Amino acid sequence: MTTAFPVLLGAYEPTTTAHEPAATADGTAATADGTAATAGEILDRCRELVRPVLAETIGRLHPWVGEMAAYSFGWCDVGGTPAEGAGGKGVRQALAVLCAEAAGASGEAAVAGAVAVELVHTFSLLHDDIMDGDQTRRTRPTVWKAYGTGPAVLAGDALFALAVEALAAVPGAGAAAGVRRLSVALGDLVRGQADDLLFESRPWTGPEAVGPEEYRRMAEHKTGALLGCAAALGAALAGAPENTAATLDRAGRHMGVAFQVADDLLGIWGDPAVTGKPVHRDLRQRKKTFPVLVALSARGPGASAAGQLATLLAESPDAPDDATTRRAADLVERAGGRSAALAEADRHIDAVERCLDGLPLAPRASAELRTLLGFLARRDI
Amino acid sequence: MTTAFPVLLGAYEPTTTAHEPAATADGTAATADGTAATAGEILDRCRELVRPVLAETIGRLHPWVGEMAAYSFGWCDVGGTPAEGAGGKGVRQALAVLCAEAAGASGEAAVAGAVAVELVHTFSLLHDDIMDGDQTRRTRPTVWKAYGTGPAVLAGDALFALAVEALAAVPGAGAAAGVRRLSVALGDLVRGQADDLLFESRPWTGPEAVGPEEYRRMAEHKTGALLGCAAALGAALAGAPENTAATLDRAGRHMGVAFQVADDLLGIWGDPAVTGKPVHRDLRQRKKTFPVLVALSARGPGASAAGQLATLLAESPDAPDDATTRRAADLVERAGGRSAALAEADRHIDAVERCLDGLPLAPRASAELRTLLGFLARRDI
Repeated sequence: MTTAFPVLLGAYEPTTTAHEPAATADGTAATADGTAATAGEILDRCRELVRPVLAETIGRLHPWVGEMAAYSFGWCDVGGTPAEGAGGKGVRQALAVLCAEAAGASGEAAVAGAVAVELVHTFSLLHDDIMDGDQTRRTRPTVWKAYGTGPAVLAGDALFALAVEALAAVPGAGAAAGVRRLSVALGDLVRGQADDLLFESRPWTGPEAVGPEEYRRMAEHKTGALLGCAAALGAALAGAPENTAATLDRAGRHMGVAFQVADDLLGIWGDPAVTGKPVHRDLRQRKKTFPVLVALSARGPGASAAGQLATLLAESPDAPDDATTRRAADLVERAGGRSAALAEADRHIDAVERCLDGLPLAPRASAELRTLLGFLARRDI
Repeated sequence: MTTAFPVLLGAYEPTTTAHEPAATADGTAATADGTAATAGEILDRCRELVRPVLAETIGRLHPWVGEMAAYSFGWCDVGGTPAEGAGGKGVRQALAVLCAEAAGASGEAAVAGAVAVELVHTFSLLHDDIMDGDQTRRTRPTVWKAYGTGPAVLAGDALFALAVEALAAVPGAGAAAGVRRLSVALGDLVRGQADDLLFESRPWTGPEAVGPEEYRRMAEHKTGALLGCAAALGAALAGAPENTAATLDRAGRHMGVAFQVADDLLGIWGDPAVTGKPVHRDLRQRKKTFPVLVALSARGPGASAAGQLATLLAESPDAPDDATTRRAADLVERAGGRSAALAEADRHIDAVERCLDGLPLAPRASAELRTLLGFLARRDI
């Protein structure tokens, strides 16, 4: 069952992915020494390209707000002492850069867009951590925990404003189109976050329950919209036709759903030694994840397990014990939730592939995009 | 002393201002029946022009987020029951509309800009109330108090995104220029709020004390930037030359400082029967307002009172009693803080007048702008 999409539950460290041999076969994703670039190498290259402009942009902020921004990028500790290594992977900036290259331009063309999407991503993490009450991110206190809620709200706002400013400053007609694209993604992001927050207070079963289709839409909005925007912005800033940008936007949205479902799988069955998080974490937190929602709606052979799962969830307390979460995980699997989630992620990965296949993309960048997307469906972004 | 700028401490209800006779003398601000439009009438007219588009724009939000937005506009109660009358005055939308008319166009030309600045203003109120811990606004619970902090953060973000989207959707070259202008104002707004938050923990005296010049910059950023943006956007969307828009932006920024200083005067010496707030409110809250800061920096005849004020502030507790705040108000006045604040507000009003005088504006809209500005320097916006 898990062989349908084994890469989903793979290791955290970027290693060779299923896509790389194909990329290497035609030589397009090969580095100078003839080997294919790994996802880690691709992310590093894009991060290095974008970082000087990102740092210069952050440097325009009010010093206090700038410190919070630098902290959230992992560039400094509380107090401003320079630090390294606790930042995000920069998936969105990489998508923008690779899509500019895939459209036949230099990655430089996408830098303003890459900066904008990284700023928006960081803004959304800052505010989401407040909304979700999350106290740690990437092994450090979240910004609201370290600096206070008010300052974290302010820092998020500053990053948001800066993202718009960075994109609006692009010369020519690209600015307005870029800002329009970003504002649509922002609207979707807020919509997805609103749904996700409301999911918490919805029942597990009955007419008010969250269905798998609603989950898909939430994931597309919350995670996919900005990935799609990153890809589309990169291509558009490189002069790609609107149709190419729109297709890459769609690819990014599918990628977002695939990632979110993969993350849900890890949240239940991920190896704590690899994920760094407790086993069955999402079941302990009673999160409405895709495997659980789809298990609860099972008909046919899975219906009996679905019924037992519904009863268990209805009767278990807010902080269920180990035996209860283990039993819940077992029932989700028996009701078909695990296999359905793997198939769901697979379907969205396939949709991404079809989007990319239909576009006239530069081969090397296209291969690197696939490497990155394979990596993305596997682990935290 | 208070005769230097009597209008500052005038009544709350819009009444005839000092500017109106001049406007009426040449008939330019006269309504159909020949009398000058009051600030209240001007605000009503502009609100009516903008509201349908504002309501349609809000209607595009996620329903839950849309309810919080409508609540903050005073259009509904918690739960969504329609309500009327608790909204803001809509000064920013009126500035945009009047500046479009002043530039020779119909107010309609400014509506997208008016919507954007009202959305940004409301976003900033939502988030500022969280940062400042304010529990009521316009006699109702603030959004974070009524719906929770997380949802209020989200609703603010949604309004912010919607503002950018509304402006980015303007056809032609106006979109990019408008978004650029808005993003500069947004950056300044955050900068001003950051400074204002940091002022709280700064000392009253010594090298780390907040000086009057720092206060001016904070007020220009926190209050002036969006007023300036509203005015400039209105003119620019009406096709005014960049120089006109830039001058109106400057006028709005001066207006912001004048308003903030006037508000500080009301916060100490305002009549509770008129302001609806306790006497000496800002002294009770130990706020670093302009009259206090300028009093503390007094040299010459006011130096002795300044010294006593510094001692009083250093020694008084976080919640000073009536006798202490009365004595503080007296010392601020004796050190020249009240007269200096009145003169400061006057200077910025004069600067606004000079900005307007230098522009070839349509006479009626120009007269209405002056009526609105006279109203603004007097009371809450």
